[in-house]
Amino acid sequence: MDEDTAKVFFQPSGRRGKVPKGTTIVEASRLLGVGIEALCGGHHVCGKCKVRIENGRIQEYDIDSKPENAGPWQAIESEHITPAERAAGFRLGCIATVRQDLSIDVPEESRPGKQVISKAARPIRIDHDPAVKTYCLKLPEATLVDPTGDFERLSRALEATYALTGLSIDFFALRSLGGALRDGKWEVTVSVWMDREIIRVRPGKAGPNYGLAVDIGTTTIAGYLCDLDTMEVVETASMMNPQIQYGEDVISRINYCFNDPEGLQRMSDSVVDGLNTLIEQAVSEAARHTGRRIRPADIEDVAVCGNTCMQHLLLQLDPEPLGSAPFTPANHSGLNIKARDLGLRVNPSANVYILPNIAGFVGGDNVGVILVEEPQKSDDTVLIVDIGTNGELVIGNRERMVCSTCSCATGPALEGAQIAFGMRAAPGAIERVKISPETHEVDYKVVGRDAWLSYSEPEEMRTRGICGSAVLDALAEMFKAGIVAGSGAFNPEIETERLRKNPDTEQKEFVLAWTAETAIGKDVVITQNDIRQIQLAKAAIYTGCKLMLRRMNLQRADRIKIAGAFGNHIDIPLALMLGVFPDCPPEHVSSIGNAAGDGCRAALLDRKKRQEADRIARRVEYVELTLMDDFQQNLIDAIHIPHMTDEFPHLKKKTKAAYKKGGL
Amino acid sequence: MDEDTAKVFFQPSGRRGKVPKGTTIVEASRLLGVGIEALCGGHHVCGKCKVRIENGRIQEYDIDSKPENAGPWQAIESEHITPAERAAGFRLGCIATVRQDLSIDVPEESRPGKQVISKAARPIRIDHDPAVKTYCLKLPEATLVDPTGDFERLSRALEATYALTGLSIDFFALRSLGGALRDGKWEVTVSVWMDREIIRVRPGKAGPNYGLAVDIGTTTIAGYLCDLDTMEVVETASMMNPQIQYGEDVISRINYCFNDPEGLQRMSDSVVDGLNTLIEQAVSEAARHTGRRIRPADIEDVAVCGNTCMQHLLLQLDPEPLGSAPFTPANHSGLNIKARDLGLRVNPSANVYILPNIAGFVGGDNVGVILVEEPQKSDDTVLIVDIGTNGELVIGNRERMVCSTCSCATGPALEGAQIAFGMRAAPGAIERVKISPETHEVDYKVVGRDAWLSYSEPEEMRTRGICGSAVLDALAEMFKAGIVAGSGAFNPEIETERLRKNPDTEQKEFVLAWTAETAIGKDVVITQNDIRQIQLAKAAIYTGCKLMLRRMNLQRADRIKIAGAFGNHIDIPLALMLGVFPDCPPEHVSSIGNAAGDGCRAALLDRKKRQEADRIARRVEYVELTLMDDFQQNLIDAIHIPHMTDEFPHLKKKTKAAYKKGGL
Repeated sequence: MDEDTAKVFFQPSGRRGKVPKGTTIVEASRLLGVGIEALCGGHHVCGKCKVRIENGRIQEYDIDSKPENAGPWQAIESEHITPAERAAGFRLGCIATVRQDLSIDVPEESRPGKQVISKAARPIRIDHDPAVKTYCLKLPEATLVDPTGDFERLSRALEATYALTGLSIDFFALRSLGGALRDGKWEVTVSVWMDREIIRVRPGKAGPNYGLAVDIGTTTIAGYLCDLDTMEVVETASMMNPQIQYGEDVISRINYCFNDPEGLQRMSDSVVDGLNTLIEQAVSEAARHTGRRIRPADIEDVAVCGNTCMQHLLLQLDPEPLGSAPFTPANHSGLNIKARDLGLRVNPSANVYILPNIAGFVGGDNVGVILVEEPQKSDDTVLIVDIGTNGELVIGNRERMVCSTCSCATGPALEGAQIAFGMRAAPGAIERVKISPETHEVDYKVVGRDAWLSYSEPEEMRTRGICGSAVLDALAEMFKAGIVAGSGAFNPEIETERLRKNPDTEQKEFVLAWTAETAIGKDVVITQNDIRQIQLAKAAIYTGCKLMLRRMNLQRADRIKIAGAFGNHIDIPLALMLGVFPDCPPEHVSSIGNAAGDGCRAALLDRKKRQEADRIARRVEYVELTLMDDFQQNLIDAIHIPHMTDEFPHLKKKTKAAYKKGGL
Repeated sequence: MDEDTAKVFFQPSGRRGKVPKGTTIVEASRLLGVGIEALCGGHHVCGKCKVRIENGRIQEYDIDSKPENAGPWQAIESEHITPAERAAGFRLGCIATVRQDLSIDVPEESRPGKQVISKAARPIRIDHDPAVKTYCLKLPEATLVDPTGDFERLSRALEATYALTGLSIDFFALRSLGGALRDGKWEVTVSVWMDREIIRVRPGKAGPNYGLAVDIGTTTIAGYLCDLDTMEVVETASMMNPQIQYGEDVISRINYCFNDPEGLQRMSDSVVDGLNTLIEQAVSEAARHTGRRIRPADIEDVAVCGNTCMQHLLLQLDPEPLGSAPFTPANHSGLNIKARDLGLRVNPSANVYILPNIAGFVGGDNVGVILVEEPQKSDDTVLIVDIGTNGELVIGNRERMVCSTCSCATGPALEGAQIAFGMRAAPGAIERVKISPETHEVDYKVVGRDAWLSYSEPEEMRTRGICGSAVLDALAEMFKAGIVAGSGAFNPEIETERLRKNPDTEQKEFVLAWTAETAIGKDVVITQNDIRQIQLAKAAIYTGCKLMLRRMNLQRADRIKIAGAFGNHIDIPLALMLGVFPDCPPEHVSSIGNAAGDGCRAALLDRKKRQEADRIARRVEYVELTLMDDFQQNLIDAIHIPHMTDEFPHLKKKTKAAYKKGGL
C-alpha cells in the first residue's frame, strides 16, 4: 500500500477511495464526490461540516477506522461540537485530517443541498365530518335501584341523546371511564370514532380535541395539527425523514432492510421517533403561537400518507417485495391501527388511519393528491406530476385513471441535491439566474440579498452555492444563451472564460459566480455532469407523461398540475420550454404544493374521504412504464432540450432565438 | 412500655399486639391469631414458616421494625432460605425471635389452609364452533400481470374458497403476511377470528392451534389449554392467585387499590404475570405429557372469567365503585381485548374474550356457570350455589333467573382456611372424621395414610391439622354425638377429656388428635371459634338460598347444584343435615365442580356461547340480599344446626338421634 495515501470510506453514500494523508475530511469528501456542507469554505467558522469518525473495522474494505486516525482534537472544534458529540466521535470535517484509514459518517445535516420545505397548508374544500367527534352528555347517576354498569349507562345515554347505537369502547378508554364519570359528577365529554368506538371519555364539558395529518416523504415529513372541531390548522411542522441515515431513496432503504435483519425494525423505530419529535414540536410551537395547551392525549385522530415504501417502513411491513418484480405491496386498502401499537405518542386509543396504496410504487401520498385534486370528477383530462424524491404520475378524468412512477428519482436533481454546488435555500444560495445571449455574462440573485449582482459590488454577494429554484433557471438561461446545446453538451464554439475545463476532473464547467463574489473562496460552477443529472430527471418526467398520455389514447392533457415541493419554485414556461412536461398551454399548468399532505388532511377532517380513498386505490390502473416496448427509446429522445419542437406549438415563438443560438 | 414485651405487626392480616420478648415469630403468630404454616411443629425441619422482616417504621402503630430485631441469623436457616431471600429479609419463623418491635410479612405460601385445587375439566356438551378457525389455502402467485397486494390477494382467495367476505387483518398479523406467503410458496394457513379478522398467517399447511380458558378465582386460578380443532383439553394448570399478597378477599383488594395509587397497577401486573406463568406451566406440562411442542404464539384465542372484581383487576379497571353502594361495575357486556394490550404472552394478535358481568359482585364466573348448567333452558327450578372464596347464588328456570351473593366470604371457613388447625390437603391432614355418640372417642383418617386411627398405632398417624374435606365432617360428627348443641355451643354436660378449656385463650375446644398421634408436638383441636366460623358461613349460604327462593315465590328448588372446589369433597346428606343448603331430596343435589371454568371453556370452543353469555348477563336479575328487610333475622335463625327441623322432611328420620343428642 502506498504509504502516502490512506483509505477513506464515507457513509451513508458508500463512496470510498484513497486520498493523500493530511487531506482534510472535507477535501477528501470532494475528491471522492461526496457532499459535505461547508458554507464557510473551510474557514472553521460555520461549523456545518460536522462528521462522525467511526471506531471499528470495515472488514469488507480492510479499513480499520480509529478516532485518532483523524488527527488531534483542536480547540476551535469545541465551539461547534458539544462534549457529548465529541465523545460520540464528532469532528469538524474542515479541521480533522486523514492520517490513517477512516470510516466517516456524514450526518444528514452536514450534507448539502437538502431543503427543509415548509409544506404550508392551503385551503381545501371538504365537509366537516371528522372520524372522531365529541359528544357532551349528562348521565343519570347510578343508584341501588338502577346500578347499571358505567359502559352500558353511557351507551344508553349516547343512544337516547345522540342516536348512536352499538358502540364499542376502546380498552384504554374503558380504563378511564369510571374515573371520568365520577370526577365529572356524571357529566362527560365522549370522543367517538366513526360512530363506532368510544376512544376517550373526559369529565365534564371538555375542551377541543385535535387530529394530526402526516405526509411521510422519502426526504421530508410534514405534519398538520388540526382542531377537529373548527378544521383549522393549528400548527404546521416539518422535519427531515430520519431514515435518510439508512439510505437517501426508496431503493437504498429496501436494500438496507434486505441486508440487515434488524434493518426494518430500526427504520420503523427511527420514523416513529421522528413522528414523536414532530408531534412535540407541533404542540410546543402551537403553545407559542396560539397559547393553546395541547397534550399528546388531546390528539385523538391521526391520518398518515406516504409512498408505498414509506408506509411499509412505518408499519414495519417487509418492503422487500416492493424492490423486485412484481413489486407487490403488503396491502392496498386503508388501515386503522391503534396509536399504541405504532408507538405514537398521541392518545393511545386513537386509530391511526393509513391511506390506501395503489401499487408498489404509487402509495397513499398519491391517493391523497387525487383526493384533493379529484381528477375522477373532472370532464377534462388532468395530468398530475408529483415530484418529491421520486416522481409519480397520475392522469385521468371521469372515465378512467392511470398512474405510474418516473423511472428514476427526479427530485434530488431538480432540487439541487445532486448538483456539485447545490445547497439548501440558505443565505448565499443563488436562487435566480440570467445569462446574456450576447456577452454570456451572468447576473444572479442570492437568498438573503435583494440586489442582483449587477447592482452590487462583487464582495457584497457572499455567494455559496445554487439552490433548487435556480437549477432549471440556470440550465434554461445557458440553453437560451447558446452555451448549452440541445443535446446538453456545452457548446465548444462559445468564447467566454466562464466555460472551461476543470483540470482535476477533466470535466467542462460553466462559472456562475467568480471567487471574488463568493464566501467560499472558490468559483461556483455548473458542471457537465450537473447538466446530465438535470436532463435525466426531466427526461424521466417527460417520458412518463408521454407514455401515460399514450395509454389514455390522448395527444395532450387538458391541464397539468405539479405537486410537491419542486412545484413551489418552478417557472412554468421555462419548465415547458426545457421539456420537463409535455406541451400544454402555460395557463393550464399550475403548481398545487404539497397536495399529498392536503389530501391526508382531507381524510383526517372528512371521513367520507376515507371511503373515497379506497375507491380511488381500487379504481386507478397502475402502469409499469419501464415494461413498455419503446420506453428506452422515448427516454433517450427526451434527454434533448426541447427534444421535439413540433410538440411545443405554444413555445415556438418564444424560444426561436434560443433554438438558433443553441445550434439546433 | 413494658420492657419485657415487644410490639409485633403481621402483614397482610393486619393483626398486631404485644408478645413477650424471646417468643419465636411462629409462636407470636399463634398468640395473635395469625396463621403461619409450620408443618414440622417448630422443629426447624420443614422450612414452611418463612417470613419476611420488614425494615422500616410503621408510623401508625409506632413500630420501628429492623431485621436485627428478630435476633441473629442461624446456620440452619440457610437450608431453607436462599442468599437472595436472606438479603430481602427472610427468616424462618420457628427460629427468629421477637427481640424488639417487628413488622412481619407472612408470604402466602407460609399461610396455612390454602389448597391448590386441581380444577379438572369435565365433559361439556357444546358445538365445535371456536371463535378462531383455521383455513388452509393456495393462492395464485403475484405476477406483473396480476400484482395485487398480499392482503387483497389473500382476501380474494378466502372469499373464493371459503366464502369469507369483508375480513380485516390484525396489524401484527399483517406484518408477518408477506413472509408467510413467500416462505409457504403462496400456500398458507390462516387463522380467522369470528369470521371477521385475520389474526395469524402461517406458511404452508400448519399444525394445530390452541385456545386457553382461564377461570380467575379470588384464591385460585385454573387454566385449560385446549386444541381448538379437536376441542380436547390438552393440559390443565392451576395456581394460587398471586394477588393474595395484597389481600385475601375481594374487599381487602378493593381497599388496597383505594389506599395505594399504584395498587391497581400492581395487582393487575401481578395477575398478568401469574397468567403468563400459568401459560408457561401448561405449555411445558403439555410437552411432557403429550409430546406436543406448543409455542405461546400457537395460543390464538383466550377466554377469561372471574368474579367482577377479579375481572376488573385483571383489566386494570378501577374496582373502587364495586366496594360501595350502588356497587356499579365498569361494564356488563363481554369484552374482546388484544392479548398484547393485556401483556399476555400468547399470540399478540389473539383477542382475549372476557365474559360479561351480571352485577358488581356477580361476574363472568357466574355467567360461565349458567352457560354450562343452563337453568334458563330448564323447566325445573335450579338453585346453583358457587362456593369459592365468596359464595354466589343463582336460581332460575325457563321463566326467570335471579342471582345474588352470600353476605360473607364462605369458602375460607368451609375449606378450613379460617380454622385454627386448618391446613392444605397435604400428608398428615385429617380428611375424614367419625365420633362415637356413646364414648365420644374419635376415629379419623389422614391424607397419605390409608388406615384409620383405629387400625393404627398412634405414632403412625403423624397428624398435622385438618383439611377442608373434614371440616363439615367434624362438625356433623360432633353434633350427632351430642358434643355440640344446635346452637353451636359445646355441650357442657358431655363428659370427656377431649372437651376442655384452653388455658391460654379461655376458649373451649375439642381434641381431635392427641399429641402422641401428631407430628407437630401438640393436640389438634376444633375450637369454639372454629365452630362459629363454620356456622356463619353455612348460615350465609342458607339465608341467601332461602331469600332467593322467596324472591322466586317458591318453597323449594327442584334441584341444587354445588359449584366450586368445596363441592368436590362435600358429603351432601351431611351438608343438608347441617343446614348448609335448604331442603331438597339428596338425590337432587349434586356437585358440579368448577362449572365457571367449564363455562369459560364452552365460550372458548363454541362462540355462540358468547352471544348467549351477553343475553344471560342482561337477563339475570340481581338481588342485593342484605337490603331485604328481614335479612338479619334470617341470618341469625340460620346459625343454628339444623335451624328449622320442619324444613327438612327428608332428614327427619336420619337425624332424629342427632337432634336428641344435640339437646334440641
